[in-house]
Amino acid sequence: MRILPSSRTLRAPFSIGDGYATLHSPILSISRRTRRTPVSARVAASGVKGYTVYNHMLLPTVFDSMEADYWHLKRHVQVWDVACERQVEVRGPDAARLVQMLTPRDLSSMTIGRCYYTPMVDETGGMLNDPVTLKLDDDRYWISIADSDLLLWVKGLAFGMRLEADVSEPDVSPLAVQGPKADQLMTRVFGEQVRSIRFFHFRLMGFQGRQLIVSRSGYSRQGGFEIYVDQTSLGEPLWDALFAAGEDLGVSAGGPNLIERVESGLLSYGNDMTRENTPHECGLGRFCDTPDAIGCVGRDALLRVTAEGPIRQIRGLKIAGEPVPPCTELWPVFADGEQVGSVSSAIWSPEFNTNVAIGMIRMTHWAPGTMLEVGASDGTRAAEVCNLPHD
Amino acid sequence: MRILPSSRTLRAPFSIGDGYATLHSPILSISRRTRRTPVSARVAASGVKGYTVYNHMLLPTVFDSMEADYWHLKRHVQVWDVACERQVEVRGPDAARLVQMLTPRDLSSMTIGRCYYTPMVDETGGMLNDPVTLKLDDDRYWISIADSDLLLWVKGLAFGMRLEADVSEPDVSPLAVQGPKADQLMTRVFGEQVRSIRFFHFRLMGFQGRQLIVSRSGYSRQGGFEIYVDQTSLGEPLWDALFAAGEDLGVSAGGPNLIERVESGLLSYGNDMTRENTPHECGLGRFCDTPDAIGCVGRDALLRVTAEGPIRQIRGLKIAGEPVPPCTELWPVFADGEQVGSVSSAIWSPEFNTNVAIGMIRMTHWAPGTMLEVGASDGTRAAEVCNLPHD
Repeated sequence: MRILPSSRTLRAPFSIGDGYATLHSPILSISRRTRRTPVSARVAASGVKGYTVYNHMLLPTVFDSMEADYWHLKRHVQVWDVACERQVEVRGPDAARLVQMLTPRDLSSMTIGRCYYTPMVDETGGMLNDPVTLKLDDDRYWISIADSDLLLWVKGLAFGMRLEADVSEPDVSPLAVQGPKADQLMTRVFGEQVRSIRFFHFRLMGFQGRQLIVSRSGYSRQGGFEIYVDQTSLGEPLWDALFAAGEDLGVSAGGPNLIERVESGLLSYGNDMTRENTPHECGLGRFCDTPDAIGCVGRDALLRVTAEGPIRQIRGLKIAGEPVPPCTELWPVFADGEQVGSVSSAIWSPEFNTNVAIGMIRMTHWAPGTMLEVGASDGTRAAEVCNLPHD
Repeated sequence: MRILPSSRTLRAPFSIGDGYATLHSPILSISRRTRRTPVSARVAASGVKGYTVYNHMLLPTVFDSMEADYWHLKRHVQVWDVACERQVEVRGPDAARLVQMLTPRDLSSMTIGRCYYTPMVDETGGMLNDPVTLKLDDDRYWISIADSDLLLWVKGLAFGMRLEADVSEPDVSPLAVQGPKADQLMTRVFGEQVRSIRFFHFRLMGFQGRQLIVSRSGYSRQGGFEIYVDQTSLGEPLWDALFAAGEDLGVSAGGPNLIERVESGLLSYGNDMTRENTPHECGLGRFCDTPDAIGCVGRDALLRVTAEGPIRQIRGLKIAGEPVPPCTELWPVFADGEQVGSVSSAIWSPEFNTNVAIGMIRMTHWAPGTMLEVGASDGTRAAEVCNLPHD
């Protein structure tokens, strides 16, 4: 799904190194175009140190340090400003048909109140986004997107096919509560009913007289919720309520954490997959029901790969040696001097005491345990193929 | 068109101020998703200090300082890494029809070798992008885009209408040469023929045995060219050739400059205009031939505003007082306590010795000379409506 902070965001800015290192600690120039969120002032007051830009919006990446944030996330509870997970709202008589056009996952039995992780593909089967889709009503969906303007694809299809559907970006800014103490914190703010929300389901929960959609989901494996703040003015009151209620739980501001997501094998659109890749290459075949996804624009293109399987696929890798430098472009992966894949995300794991990575490896070399070589930006290193999540 | 660096990118990072100022000097976290360009290593070696993210790609914003970069641009010549101006290539039997669907500008008499500034709108007449469109052949166009995934809109339309057109993002990364000495520098690298390229025309020019598209265009009013580098491996040789040839001209690395663009009245998509706005509101009516743009998907919606004119429109403003803080969100504009518009871009102009701004003002108050009040983030200031460009 989402994000991708770099591991070197904490180094001193402007350190002039080899011409490569300087790329990793520049200042971000902010303007209206890199949109603020309903809680940007709270994020700033919490001492944010780094951002990335995601769906034309600020996404905080580092507060204390990448590693301190990581340990805190795995032990306590964090509030994340993930407003950049914008919604594409699809509503109208043709809404269900239009949403099914987007994905090879069969939505015909999806019920109201469900969240589905939905690979979205173009007519060639190439990934356009990997959002979570929420069914709000039989004729109303929210598609909670990763980093691409999926809105424009959906609008183009709707117009081109003259569908009776309205496609818009509503004023909805998710706030995530993630970590092992998320249930405790959420219960204090929303009441005991939050515990009854099952994984990838949502319910309406009251807050200050308003009903907000709350789902059990989020871009970590530490457990937690996403609150769909559907009114900008509610952002700060909700943030404040969560921090007030969670003081003794050690609640802090956080964000999707590169170390945690790579360990957990959570993919990032734009990093680990692009339009070049099919869902099957991305290891997302289990979210595809291509033969039954009748109407999906990529169905024709995907039927063959569905039957035969891909010739390259996402894998984990453990990379030997010292902590790797930031992976800011594909690193080639070799076997006997021949390229057999590439690494798209890599970082030092304090828990596993090695570098963990995500990459795309050819079928001939993707078996767990295969020893390969990675051309990292600071030199060649040994690496071992493994399953995801890392363990 | 493009860009938007913030004026405070040069302040010390992590300065914890009022919770607002901290927003302006954070580190940018870089990953594969915030794509590098063919000349990223050269940009780093040139001492880049700030970036923004534009079309999921790094765009350098500051080298020396915003103001030093500005004076240099107005006096000498700069090489800009504007690879983020990605191309949407449209080719095939239906290419011309598809491109006309996108814009209310009449393309029927466009000849090969022309660049057209083309407002692009959705079915409601709302701006989706404001690219420069190049006609490469009768059945082949490049749309050189501002910051939105226009590719997805064009692909959606093409699929939905079953058009015979291929829509892709080729490996083309523009490099701009801007400033009063641009002609001199370009002549040294490409020969005297570059002088014959007329404004918003392009020609093929030889470089190291390859023919590159070179247009007289760019995101400044200082004159210059854009070179469409259509092979990643050519980026560094071209960069090096320009710097070697321009040493005595004082050539330096640069980028779209916020001060220069606001003075010049160059709009920025995502800053000064969004899907909310029609081209007419953006003052782009002169690029629209709506009644004749038959096939444009926004034609129906725009016919009325074409006839009647908009009720609000882009204007310049001069804002009184000390240099304004960075404008990172809309600032409301008031007359007698009632909101009559908003400011979207603002910065101190060393040349005009006042703050220059771009905003959207209601018809009742848009006459040049009208005195208004701007609710800047640091307090209310007097402002005077003026024409664009500033003078």
